[in-house]
Amino acid sequence: MWQGNSLSMFRFFQVIRCMAAVAWEPRKPLSIEEVDVAPPKAHEVRIKVVASGVCHTDWEYLYEAGRGMSLRPFPVVLGHEAAGVVESVGPDVTKFAPGDKVIPLFLPFCEECDQCKCEKTNLCKKNWENTQAGVLADGTSRISCRGQQVYQFLGVSSFCQYTVVPDTSLAKINPKAPLEKVCLLGCGVSTGYGAAVKTGKVEEGSCCAVFGLGAVGLAAVMGCQAAKARRIIAVDINPDKFQKAREFGATECINPRDYGNKPIQEILVEKTNGGVDYALECVGSPVTMSAALESTRDGCGTCVIAGWTETESMSVKVIKILMGRTLKGTYFGGWKSAKDVPQLVEDYMQKKLKLDEFISHNLPLAQINNAFDLLRNGQSIRTVISLDDF
Amino acid sequence: MWQGNSLSMFRFFQVIRCMAAVAWEPRKPLSIEEVDVAPPKAHEVRIKVVASGVCHTDWEYLYEAGRGMSLRPFPVVLGHEAAGVVESVGPDVTKFAPGDKVIPLFLPFCEECDQCKCEKTNLCKKNWENTQAGVLADGTSRISCRGQQVYQFLGVSSFCQYTVVPDTSLAKINPKAPLEKVCLLGCGVSTGYGAAVKTGKVEEGSCCAVFGLGAVGLAAVMGCQAAKARRIIAVDINPDKFQKAREFGATECINPRDYGNKPIQEILVEKTNGGVDYALECVGSPVTMSAALESTRDGCGTCVIAGWTETESMSVKVIKILMGRTLKGTYFGGWKSAKDVPQLVEDYMQKKLKLDEFISHNLPLAQINNAFDLLRNGQSIRTVISLDDF
Repeated sequence: MWQGNSLSMFRFFQVIRCMAAVAWEPRKPLSIEEVDVAPPKAHEVRIKVVASGVCHTDWEYLYEAGRGMSLRPFPVVLGHEAAGVVESVGPDVTKFAPGDKVIPLFLPFCEECDQCKCEKTNLCKKNWENTQAGVLADGTSRISCRGQQVYQFLGVSSFCQYTVVPDTSLAKINPKAPLEKVCLLGCGVSTGYGAAVKTGKVEEGSCCAVFGLGAVGLAAVMGCQAAKARRIIAVDINPDKFQKAREFGATECINPRDYGNKPIQEILVEKTNGGVDYALECVGSPVTMSAALESTRDGCGTCVIAGWTETESMSVKVIKILMGRTLKGTYFGGWKSAKDVPQLVEDYMQKKLKLDEFISHNLPLAQINNAFDLLRNGQSIRTVISLDDF
Repeated sequence: MWQGNSLSMFRFFQVIRCMAAVAWEPRKPLSIEEVDVAPPKAHEVRIKVVASGVCHTDWEYLYEAGRGMSLRPFPVVLGHEAAGVVESVGPDVTKFAPGDKVIPLFLPFCEECDQCKCEKTNLCKKNWENTQAGVLADGTSRISCRGQQVYQFLGVSSFCQYTVVPDTSLAKINPKAPLEKVCLLGCGVSTGYGAAVKTGKVEEGSCCAVFGLGAVGLAAVMGCQAAKARRIIAVDINPDKFQKAREFGATECINPRDYGNKPIQEILVEKTNGGVDYALECVGSPVTMSAALESTRDGCGTCVIAGWTETESMSVKVIKILMGRTLKGTYFGGWKSAKDVPQLVEDYMQKKLKLDEFISHNLPLAQINNAFDLLRNGQSIRTVISLDDF
């Protein structure tokens, strides 16, 4: 412990110069740059990022900025689904020490706000506005490039070899955990899996439909299987995703384009004799959200929205709600982040949860734009970026 | 019992000629007519209607037919919130006998369909399509006028001195219950009260907003009070409703028109420091529904739609759902009709539930159109029509 603290004290004043992928402006490829990462301030932790998944939200924020996504400031370092090792800690940090294996979190768990204390939600309010704006508690970022402040996407910025996060936005995990796998628990897999088991509370023997078979959707399929759903119908317009969906537990796969102009909700209602018990929307499209809701059954159908959009509205036929359906949303799968992520890591270590199967590509940071291309073209499930291997 | 059965057998073949308010076509006043009420067929019960509330849905079906409401066939006898006495029973009826005090139900409880067996819903599927189309199980109505079949609104038709309903759509109630009061449990009061206590599951100490202070809304206020909500904010653009709302338990009353163009959801979010825990929409307007949803708090706000519209869609800002809100609907307050209504009657008899306070007017059947005028002009809460007193 003495050594750890000593190391921490020593590094406390040091700026680290390292490599990062900087997004200078919307709709332009990322630029690999040398950046400076400032030391952690009070209640902050600087981590060496080892691996980062490339999430659709990273791509979307860059290429859909101001459209499906709110316009946040640029330049920014994207990346929010990562794992790493604590490099140093700022003053008043008690729960972390250099060398700890950690997963940084875009959703904090402060344990103090009324929402952290409430069992019904995981939406910790601590520094919410700052995090959304890309800065830490003091209103600034710890990353700069060529003397200019670079914002931290969702308070994380894991497309950077080092980053600084609040100590409430960090999960200490099993030191044996392989960081290049468990990084996926920082966003997509936790979100989809939790959408099914935690927010949706999928029941044994139920009939489920999952819309969209990216990482979030496949994780939702995995969640439905973990919940012992009887029937898991995977829906995507890209049939290349179906084999993977079956590996994760889908009992049927449907491509809506095979049915001409017939709405997918009608197909599902027919196939299930009245509708599914649970529909999990993992696309982020308002049209698909409406379809998902309408694909659930009268009386007690539940639709969980896990796909992301910040600026759009969906249309809800009121009679569908009056007939007993429930519409819910999930943020980070409903998990209380720093509290629940270590257990999800354990579940992976004990083979209760798949992670390796999500990883279709591994690339070094220098090839981050290739990862975006793979994602946009539907060729990858998850690309994991190695930050070591530059 | 022998007497009862004898009487029933005797009347089994008799058509009863009596008075009814017939709606010959949309958007025309009701016409008081002599009608013929056929005897009950198998599993049907003919009842003498003693009292019927006038519900907004009756008015809406007549004056908004094909607009907010699906177009159902005319001519029709409206009325679906009633109480009466069993006059005769058809073959195979085992649970009812002449003289029983009853409440006819637009929602059956067959105890056999999968939804009756499911604890999560009250939406019995028995004869659903027929009921919506205004006919009984055999595809015909028991009411005729001048030789023409007259449809039964939602399978009930209580603006008629006699009517015939399925034995699964009837609740036998305490013989001491005053029918001219408990008729309100046939629709509006049960719907609003259940929206709060059963569908919304309003919690002790919570903060609630009720939109629309007609009978359904006032019953929702009463439900919030029964659930021991800490704060009950009643919202209506007609301030004449506020005194009544306070009687039912509202702690505050808000007229959105007092705030200029500021959206009511913004007013409520400000007043409650983040939003209400439960919003209960009792208007039936898609715009109000969106406002109700947006007035709930991040994390665990719940919006229950109790207002009725059959053809319209509401707009839902997806981010509001992703931030942890739940949107639900209620049909007949979530009550398993024939099973739960007798208990609601008991609750009234034991003064746990108000009914008298909802009744602003009592009128004979001949003045039914006046009751509609009072309703449309916001001058009545509930008018109870006496069918005896013609």
